Amino acid sequence: MKVNNVEIEDTFCEAFSGYFARVLITAETKRIAYEAAREVTGYATSIIGCSAEAGIEKYLSPAETPDKRAGYVIQIWTSKKKIEHELIFRLSQCVLTMPSTRVFNYLEGDEKVKAGYKIKYFGDGYEKEVESYGRKMVSIPIMFGEFLIEQEFSIAKGIMGGNFLIMAENQASALIAAERAVDAIGEIDGVITPFPICASGSKVGSKYKFLKASTNEIYCPTLSSSVENSKVKDVKAVLEIVINGISEEAVKEAMRAGIEAACIDGVKRISAANYGGKLGQYKIYLRDII
Amino acid sequence: MKVNNVEIEDTFCEAFSGYFARVLITAETKRIAYEAAREVTGYATSIIGCSAEAGIEKYLSPAETPDKRAGYVIQIWTSKKKIEHELIFRLSQCVLTMPSTRVFNYLEGDEKVKAGYKIKYFGDGYEKEVESYGRKMVSIPIMFGEFLIEQEFSIAKGIMGGNFLIMAENQASALIAAERAVDAIGEIDGVITPFPICASGSKVGSKYKFLKASTNEIYCPTLSSSVENSKVKDVKAVLEIVINGISEEAVKEAMRAGIEAACIDGVKRISAANYGGKLGQYKIYLRDII
Amino acid sequence: MKVNNVEIEDTFCEAFSGYFARVLITAETKRIAYEAAREVTGYATSIIGCSAEAGIEKYLSPAETPDKRAGYVIQIWTSKKKIEHELIFRLSQCVLTMPSTRVFNYLEGDEKVKAGYKIKYFGDGYEKEVESYGRKMVSIPIMFGEFLIEQEFSIAKGIMGGNFLIMAENQASALIAAERAVDAIGEIDGVITPFPICASGSKVGSKYKFLKASTNEIYCPTLSSSVENSKVKDVKAVLEIVINGISEEAVKEAMRAGIEAACIDGVKRISAANYGGKLGQYKIYLRDII
Amino acid sequence: MKVNNVEIEDTFCEAFSGYFARVLITAETKRIAYEAAREVTGYATSIIGCSAEAGIEKYLSPAETPDKRAGYVIQIWTSKKKIEHELIFRLSQCVLTMPSTRVFNYLEGDEKVKAGYKIKYFGDGYEKEVESYGRKMVSIPIMFGEFLIEQEFSIAKGIMGGNFLIMAENQASALIAAERAVDAIGEIDGVITPFPICASGSKVGSKYKFLKASTNEIYCPTLSSSVENSKVKDVKAVLEIVINGISEEAVKEAMRAGIEAACIDGVKRISAANYGGKLGQYKIYLRDII
Repeated sequence: MKVNNVEIEDTFCEAFSGYFARVLITAETKRIAYEAAREVTGYATSIIGCSAEAGIEKYLSPAETPDKRAGYVIQIWTSKKKIEHELIFRLSQCVLTMPSTRVFNYLEGDEKVKAGYKIKYFGDGYEKEVESYGRKMVSIPIMFGEFLIEQEFSIAKGIMGGNFLIMAENQASALIAAERAVDAIGEIDGVITPFPICASGSKVGSKYKFLKASTNEIYCPTLSSSVENSKVKDVKAVLEIVINGISEEAVKEAMRAGIEAACIDGVKRISAANYGGKLGQYKIYLRDII
Repeated sequence: MKVNNVEIEDTFCEAFSGYFARVLITAETKRIAYEAAREVTGYATSIIGCSAEAGIEKYLSPAETPDKRAGYVIQIWTSKKKIEHELIFRLSQCVLTMPSTRVFNYLEGDEKVKAGYKIKYFGDGYEKEVESYGRKMVSIPIMFGEFLIEQEFSIAKGIMGGNFLIMAENQASALIAAERAVDAIGEIDGVITPFPICASGSKVGSKYKFLKASTNEIYCPTLSSSVENSKVKDVKAVLEIVINGISEEAVKEAMRAGIEAACIDGVKRISAANYGGKLGQYKIYLRDII
Repeated sequence: MKVNNVEIEDTFCEAFSGYFARVLITAETKRIAYEAAREVTGYATSIIGCSAEAGIEKYLSPAETPDKRAGYVIQIWTSKKKIEHELIFRLSQCVLTMPSTRVFNYLEGDEKVKAGYKIKYFGDGYEKEVESYGRKMVSIPIMFGEFLIEQEFSIAKGIMGGNFLIMAENQASALIAAERAVDAIGEIDGVITPFPICASGSKVGSKYKFLKASTNEIYCPTLSSSVENSKVKDVKAVLEIVINGISEEAVKEAMRAGIEAACIDGVKRISAANYGGKLGQYKIYLRDII
Repeated sequence: MKVNNVEIEDTFCEAFSGYFARVLITAETKRIAYEAAREVTGYATSIIGCSAEAGIEKYLSPAETPDKRAGYVIQIWTSKKKIEHELIFRLSQCVLTMPSTRVFNYLEGDEKVKAGYKIKYFGDGYEKEVESYGRKMVSIPIMFGEFLIEQEFSIAKGIMGGNFLIMAENQASALIAAERAVDAIGEIDGVITPFPICASGSKVGSKYKFLKASTNEIYCPTLSSSVENSKVKDVKAVLEIVINGISEEAVKEAMRAGIEAACIDGVKRISAANYGGKLGQYKIYLRDII
C-alpha cells in the first residue's frame, strides 16, 4: 500500500495498557497556562526511565473552560498504583508554583484519585474545601493569592505506545515528516505524543542484564551493513512517533493522521514497532487504519 | 534603600549548598536543541518534590560549541549522591531520544560522574568509545543515526535557593516585574531560575507532620488580616524568584540584576526569604548587592 | 456599570467602513504557514500611515483547509480602490516567496479582485490556470516547486476602528489586561486587532496642518495636570485595543470578549475613543455590548 | 570544491548598493521589544515590491543598550531618497504605537536623516526635545506614557542582495538546510536576511513588459525537462538565501556561515544568483569565501 508514493509496510504496532489522568490547567494569560503545562509534562518521555509519560493534549479557549480562562489539557500516564503520587508531585511542584493557575479534572469516570485533596495540606491549615465553578475544589492561600485545584481527578485505563516509524532517505526529510506528523496528531482529541519525536526507538531487553530496553539495532542506519536482518539498508534516518490515547480509536485516528502527514517526498517507508506480538495487549495493523 | 522608588528591605536570603552538573546540548537546528533542553529540565522546580532542580542557563552560538552547532547549556542540581543517577536518566530519556542531539560536559573540575559512560550500554554492544571534538565520548547507534555523549561530566558544589521576593500592588505588576527579572537573570553567566517564577514560596515545616514545607502564611495576601505578623498588609501579590548558581558571586550578580529589573511602578517592596538564618550556609544581604 | 469592579464608562466607540479581503495561507508545516502570515500582515497597523491594516484572524487545522494542510486566515484592509493592488503586492512579496505556501480565498461574495490572476505573470509564460482543490487557481513554477494561488479573492465592506481603552493604575496592569484582551479577541471569528495593542491612540487633526492625526492629549497621563479636560487624572497608563471585523456583530462580540478579559485588578476604567460622532458611520455603545 | 560532500559551484553572486539605517528598539520586556521589531520589519522582503527591505539583525541584552533594557537591532533598507520617509512611517506606525518602546540610532556616521525629529510632530505641541541616555531625543506624550526616539538616524551605503542557492534532493532537505543557514547568519554582526528564506528567486525582466522581475525558469525544478539550459535537472527544490549587510566583509562572512550550515545530507549543490555580472556593483565568488 502506498500513500503519496510512500510505502506503508504491512505490519502492526504493539501497544499496551496504562493509566492516565486528564487535567486542565488554566491561568490569567494563555502564555502562563502554556508555561505551566510545559513544565508539568517535562521529563516524561517514557516510563522506561521517567516517573510518568506526559504531554499537552490541546488548548481550550476561555469559552471552553470552567473558569472562563485560557487553558491547556494535559495527560499524565503511569501505572494505576503510582498515578496519585505522580499527580500530587507534578501538580504541586509545577502548577501550584506557577502564578495564577487553577487545575481541573478533565476526565469522566468513577475511578478517582484524591490528588487535589492531598495537595491541600500545603495550605498548612489555612486551606479550605470549597465549591467553585461547579466543582469540589480546595482553596490554598499562596504568596500570589489563592490557588484552586479540584479535589479529585478521574483516572482511566488507556492505551500507551501506539507508534509508527518514519524511514527516510536522509535526516532532514525525517525531521520535516515528523514535525508534520506531530502537528497533525496535535489536532486529534484524546491523544498525546510524549517524546514528542523519538530518535532512539528501543527493543525489549539487552545483552546487558541490567537493562530492560536497548537500541533496536536492526533499525539503526549506521549498522545497516554490519547487523543481520537490518531493516534499514535503503534508508538513512528513522524517527518513531509514539502515541498514548484515551482509547484505541483515538490512537488509531492519531496514527492515521500522523502517517498521512509524514508521507512526504524523501520518506521511503512507514513501518511500526512491535515485539512479535508477545508483549502488548493491542495490535494495530497499519493496513487497517489507512 | 530604594531602587526606582521601590523599597529594598534590609533583610537577607538564605541559601544552601548543592551539587550540580553543567551540560551542553547541541543539535542540527537551534529549535531542536531548545526542545531537548526544555524537556530535560522539565519537572525540576524544587528538590522538595522533584528529583532535581534544573533550568536552561544560556544559548551558545555554533562558534562557541565543540561541534560548531547551536546549543543550550543546562544545569541539573541535586545531592552529590544522586547526581550521577539523575544525569543518566534525564539525559538518556530526554536528550538521547531527541533527533540529532549531542551532549558535552560544560564544567571544569576533577570531580566527575560517568553518566555518558553508563548511558552507552543502551547501545547493546554496538556502542563505541571514541574521541570526537577533542573529547572522550561514546558513540551509540540509534534509529536517527549516531548519538554522541561525553563519557564523564564534572560536578561541583554550588549554591541553591538564592532568592528575592517581589511584593506588588496587584498581580499584573508582579507578573511583569517577574518577567523582567527572569529575563535579566537570563543574561547572567552561571545561574538558572529553576521555577522560573515561584508563586507559592514556602516556609520550612508544617503543622502536618508528614510535610517538610508548607505555605508561608505571613506572605499570603489573602491571609493578611487573619494571621499574626502578616508581612503583606499593603500588597496584594508576591512572587519569589529562586536562583541557583555556580558560585556565590554568580548568585549575587543575578540577584542584583533581577532586583533592579523588578523595581517597576506597581511594585511596593523587594524582600527575601530566610528561615532565621538557621538552615542555610549562605546569607546574602540585599543591602550588600544593590 | 462595573465588570469585576472595573468601571465601564457610558460612552461609545466610533468606527468606520472599509474594504477587506480574507485570505487563507497554508504550508507544509504550521510553523511556515505562521511565518508567512506574520510577514504578510506586517507594517500594517493603521491606514493613517500604512498601505493597509492587516492581522492574523485564526488558525485552521488541516481538516479545515482545502488542501488538508495547516493554515492561517489573515485579513487585509484598505480602501476599495486600493485593495487589489495591496493584495497583489503583499501576497507576491511575502507569501509567494515563502517555501511551500498556497493561497486561498476565504470569503464569500460576488465582489472580487483578480489578485491571484495578476500575480500569475510572475510565471513569465510558464504559469498555468488550473482547477485544484475545487478552486480556480494559477500554478506558477518557482525555485522551490509549484506555487498555487486562487485567481480571484472576494472583497467586502466591513467595519474598521472598533475600539476600547484600558485605563490602568500602572503600566504593568495595562500590559497584562491588554494581553488578556487580545488573546480573548483572538478566539472571536471574523475579527483582527491590527496593532495588536496601541500605545499611542490619536485624535483627528493637529495644530500642525500637515498632520491628519496627532496624540490625544486628554488621554496622556504625563499631561494630566497640564492640559484642560484631562481624562486620565486618576490613571497612569492607557492602552487602546483596535478591532476590525467582517460585521458590526463580530466587532461587538470582540469588544465584549476583550473588555471582559481586560477587567482585572489594577485597571480603573474601560472607555472608548470617539470623535464626537461626526466621523464614523458606526457608534457602538459600551453599555449595549456588556 | 566540496563542503561536507556538497558541491560548491564555481560561480558568484551579484550584489548591489543600497542605503540602510540601523535602529535599536528597546522595551520594558524582551517580548514586547521583539514584537515591535517584528512588526516594523514586516512586509519588507524585497524592494522589487515592498517599500523597503528590513529584518532583525540581533538581540541586545540590557547591559548593551543605552537605557539598560532588552532590545533588538533592526535594519531598514531602501534608496537614499526614500529612507527618511520610510523610517518616519515604519517607526511611527509600528514602534511608537507599541507600549513602552524607545528608539535609538545604532549606526555611526555623519550622513543623517531626521526621522525622530519629524515623528515628534505627532506630539501636537506637547513634544519636547530632550537629552536622554546621552542622546538627543524627542519626548512625545502618548496614552501609555512617554515615547522617546532619537532625533537623527545615521544612514549609510551598504550591500544588498548577497545570496546563495541551496539546491536539494527534496523539499524537506532544502527547508532544514535553509533553517540552519538563517540561524547561522543570525549570529553574524551587521547583516539581515530580509525574506528570510526565498522560495521564488527571480531573474531580471520578463516577457511581460510591465514586469521588472519574473520566475527564474532555469532554476525551477518543475520545468527541468521543458526549458532549455535547466540548471536543476538533478535537484527537486531550490531555496535562495538573500543577505543585506553593512559591508562587503559582513556579507561575505554571512555567506560563508550560511553556506557551511546549509551543506547537509540531502543538499546536492550550493550555487549563487547572478545576472551575468551586468547589474550589480559587487561580485562575490563562492570560491573566495569558503
